Amino acid sequence: MAKYGFIGSGLMGNPMAMNLIKAGHQLTVYNRDAAKCKNLVEAGATQVSTPLEVVAAADVTYCMVSDPEAAMAVCFSPHGVIQGVGSGKGYVDMSTVDPQTAEKIGISIQARGGEYLEAPVSGTVQPARDGQLVIMAAGDESLMKRAQAGFDAMGKKTVFLGEIGAASSMKLTVNMMMGSMITALSEGLTLAEASGLKGEDLLDILAAGALACPMFQGKGSAMLANNFTANFPLKHLQKDLRLAVQLGDHHRVPLANAAVSNEVAKRACQIGLENDDMCAIVQALRPPQA
Amino acid sequence: MAKYGFIGSGLMGNPMAMNLIKAGHQLTVYNRDAAKCKNLVEAGATQVSTPLEVVAAADVTYCMVSDPEAAMAVCFSPHGVIQGVGSGKGYVDMSTVDPQTAEKIGISIQARGGEYLEAPVSGTVQPARDGQLVIMAAGDESLMKRAQAGFDAMGKKTVFLGEIGAASSMKLTVNMMMGSMITALSEGLTLAEASGLKGEDLLDILAAGALACPMFQGKGSAMLANNFTANFPLKHLQKDLRLAVQLGDHHRVPLANAAVSNEVAKRACQIGLENDDMCAIVQALRPPQA
Amino acid sequence: MAKYGFIGSGLMGNPMAMNLIKAGHQLTVYNRDAAKCKNLVEAGATQVSTPLEVVAAADVTYCMVSDPEAAMAVCFSPHGVIQGVGSGKGYVDMSTVDPQTAEKIGISIQARGGEYLEAPVSGTVQPARDGQLVIMAAGDESLMKRAQAGFDAMGKKTVFLGEIGAASSMKLTVNMMMGSMITALSEGLTLAEASGLKGEDLLDILAAGALACPMFQGKGSAMLANNFTANFPLKHLQKDLRLAVQLGDHHRVPLANAAVSNEVAKRACQIGLENDDMCAIVQALRPPQA
Amino acid sequence: MAKYGFIGSGLMGNPMAMNLIKAGHQLTVYNRDAAKCKNLVEAGATQVSTPLEVVAAADVTYCMVSDPEAAMAVCFSPHGVIQGVGSGKGYVDMSTVDPQTAEKIGISIQARGGEYLEAPVSGTVQPARDGQLVIMAAGDESLMKRAQAGFDAMGKKTVFLGEIGAASSMKLTVNMMMGSMITALSEGLTLAEASGLKGEDLLDILAAGALACPMFQGKGSAMLANNFTANFPLKHLQKDLRLAVQLGDHHRVPLANAAVSNEVAKRACQIGLENDDMCAIVQALRPPQA
Repeated sequence: MAKYGFIGSGLMGNPMAMNLIKAGHQLTVYNRDAAKCKNLVEAGATQVSTPLEVVAAADVTYCMVSDPEAAMAVCFSPHGVIQGVGSGKGYVDMSTVDPQTAEKIGISIQARGGEYLEAPVSGTVQPARDGQLVIMAAGDESLMKRAQAGFDAMGKKTVFLGEIGAASSMKLTVNMMMGSMITALSEGLTLAEASGLKGEDLLDILAAGALACPMFQGKGSAMLANNFTANFPLKHLQKDLRLAVQLGDHHRVPLANAAVSNEVAKRACQIGLENDDMCAIVQALRPPQA
Repeated sequence: MAKYGFIGSGLMGNPMAMNLIKAGHQLTVYNRDAAKCKNLVEAGATQVSTPLEVVAAADVTYCMVSDPEAAMAVCFSPHGVIQGVGSGKGYVDMSTVDPQTAEKIGISIQARGGEYLEAPVSGTVQPARDGQLVIMAAGDESLMKRAQAGFDAMGKKTVFLGEIGAASSMKLTVNMMMGSMITALSEGLTLAEASGLKGEDLLDILAAGALACPMFQGKGSAMLANNFTANFPLKHLQKDLRLAVQLGDHHRVPLANAAVSNEVAKRACQIGLENDDMCAIVQALRPPQA
Repeated sequence: MAKYGFIGSGLMGNPMAMNLIKAGHQLTVYNRDAAKCKNLVEAGATQVSTPLEVVAAADVTYCMVSDPEAAMAVCFSPHGVIQGVGSGKGYVDMSTVDPQTAEKIGISIQARGGEYLEAPVSGTVQPARDGQLVIMAAGDESLMKRAQAGFDAMGKKTVFLGEIGAASSMKLTVNMMMGSMITALSEGLTLAEASGLKGEDLLDILAAGALACPMFQGKGSAMLANNFTANFPLKHLQKDLRLAVQLGDHHRVPLANAAVSNEVAKRACQIGLENDDMCAIVQALRPPQA
Repeated sequence: MAKYGFIGSGLMGNPMAMNLIKAGHQLTVYNRDAAKCKNLVEAGATQVSTPLEVVAAADVTYCMVSDPEAAMAVCFSPHGVIQGVGSGKGYVDMSTVDPQTAEKIGISIQARGGEYLEAPVSGTVQPARDGQLVIMAAGDESLMKRAQAGFDAMGKKTVFLGEIGAASSMKLTVNMMMGSMITALSEGLTLAEASGLKGEDLLDILAAGALACPMFQGKGSAMLANNFTANFPLKHLQKDLRLAVQLGDHHRVPLANAAVSNEVAKRACQIGLENDDMCAIVQALRPPQA
């Protein structure tokens, strides 16, 4: 088995790394806040104190951090990934970034003789724990062979999409639709409530028809219960909507639905909900509490 | 078995009426364009030439026409439904109307001693043929007993929601979400195409995750194939979005996502697509053909 | 001089009627809340207790009420305008209504031998007091001769636009732009404040350039002073935005900017500001007070 | 008189530089496309071949290029501005950039002992020719003394706004409102045309009321005449809307009106109008030509 590395042990990275360990992979880990690697070490991982050391120890290093700025820092900071990359090294960045960031990182990795895949995922904390993520990969197809075992431990499905930029574009497109859909769900529930209907009846009817999807059931129930414990923080959804609108800008595609959903998400952040789950977006539409 | 009547033999009404006949009900039918009842007569229905005659012959009359104006005309025109209503008569209007129209019709029916249910449906032509509609009913709960056999022949699920207005409000809420979702799907596919991705890959990834729903698969494939043959005409979706935005107006609920989806739908109608299927909305976003 | 009548003595109607009296016209007045005619009677008007009596006493009757429902009631209720209309009577409805309402009223007036003009205005309370309204008229051009003296007392400019419906369409178009512009101003001021800039500097810079308009100075200053005393209530602006979006619907014109401005206005109404001045719309964008 | 320099001789920069020459300033000029400096040289300017040489020759150098990328290149490229900055040198960047870019440039200038002002302008080509721009300045207040003479030659009004970032934030706020307003104007004219009204009547009525502004008259007339010759290219307006929406993102201010206006502008670019004047945005709303 290849020696794997994992950078980033947050809400998503921690359970993803754990699945690599459970699948029997020798794993070297790093996280800025070192305490978050404790359970991984207890399960058998080796902890180091810089991204560089991870890359030095591993054949293929996976990374899962929260946004483009963090992904760039992990790669290019002193003692960053780029310092340890050379022939034979593979780097798989699974963070959600914009295509331009994926390109900057990927080109630098390749320039130093390494192989690179951008591989963002669809799915949040529970699918991450269950190893049921959907993985969208692009970049060096030759790295897919060595990385696939790791993908199989972390996910239920991997799709290879082509050249660097394709996977981040796809991820942003999917999350853009998620942002529009959770805004639509918020509008549906708020309108139902205001019309004297029961939100449970709306979810029931949705579940029986062509619009039935797992997200409506899960997030809809959370909204009805006012349960906003963060699975996927609203500020990350809003970041994805922003990046998607920018991608549309880049390709001259008008995205009015995504653009207004982005503004509703900003309003929800403005009123203090940015660290709550993305389903807290409904609070931007409900009348303020008396 | 109760004697049933059916007014309206269009895209939806015809297969719904056919299911009543197949279930063994004695059926009296009427349609403005008489030729559209031909297959129903061949299957055993009795055709008459006014709504009034339908109500006279039936214990419970169902109606399925295209919009509030048509529903009002069927009820209140000379030789309309209201002329034949009295004690013992039941009227079930399954057309999609705004709550105010449902109220006008229902109150008039009740004033003449009849029983009334508004019972719009979720589902389009194929579910109508297959007897797999989702039926949302409200009004005189006492009429549910006599109408349920008809509902069971036409649908897979009936939900009773309360007083007149509740079912049309629920229907508009569901169709509002459908309008927002098909706009989101259009944005996703157009952005994917512009980014050099394959639309099929997007649909694949959607199908594997929390956003997976039958509509994305069906309408997404149709969009990729440029197949806009009307199942649910775009002009009807746009009408539903308009009525939903007005309902939000009535209840002071801001619906930015639905409001812009409505404007995108109007743009698609403006460029000539209003009689195409609702999935033709994607053409308002794609670059014009060279 | 022609004998004039005036129906509606609210925020706008009262000063408009006063200008007719000051110009020397013999005026018969009516208002649902009779107390609001007190100052007009003191200035020389004759007060009556039904719209019918106004029309009976006057050659040309002007009406200024708040919305389509009120305009219809004034015309068609028992003892309404329509009862008193016949050959030689002129009716000039200056209320802001949708074109379909203008048509219903106008056609009924004409059917009874009367002449009709729809004549909505641009301008709020201060221009009403100063006789500086902009009047948009349409309908029976022959009535313009007898009505012009009244228009000259109430306004600074009259434009005759054509057939019934043209003036209400024009009024809605203008007020739609006003709704979009006051939303844009709200966004500008809120963004400036959040960026650490002074709102006064923004208004200063606007006043010096191509975007300089009286509304920005007036409403902008009111927003900075948190002065929301109603000149033009927000609920009326929202009604106009709603009617404009519907007019766009009727003509298949996509109006995304107006549609979202309408939703922002609804949000402001939802949080309790509907009886405040339209400039209170900025509160829907500012962060909630601590 | 101070020795001035001017970098950028495009649509805006050329007439601005010409006004400095006409006011009697000794001017050193540079433009990437050298031919565009011809008229300036004929009027007495000295042409050089790099930004560095401009800064070397001048006490205060003004720059006017088209976007953040160009502004960064002028400053940081080999033989760029930064190479020539030291104690006593002043740099005034009048390009429209986002606040982060202004900060990067300004901090670098200051780090080398120079003084810096960001000074974007309001107004397009004609006001540039007439020396009637509105100038928004921020940064080193001490540089205002030496730069003011240049500002007075180029503009009618200068406002000093504070620390670096304040002027670019203000400029983006103003241009965001311009984008929303020209979208509102497009909606107004398109709705008027579709309702059978004359666009000239709408412009007439606007000019008489509280919404009267120079932009409506100028751009409105151009739209009616289908005259889209570029004064301010649509692609620049769309860039400004994009940067404004991002600034709102940064400060958590929801900007729904600006966001949808941005999408309408993108649609207009998508259909081929990005090099036309910003008033070509109306073509995204008008029905396609038969």
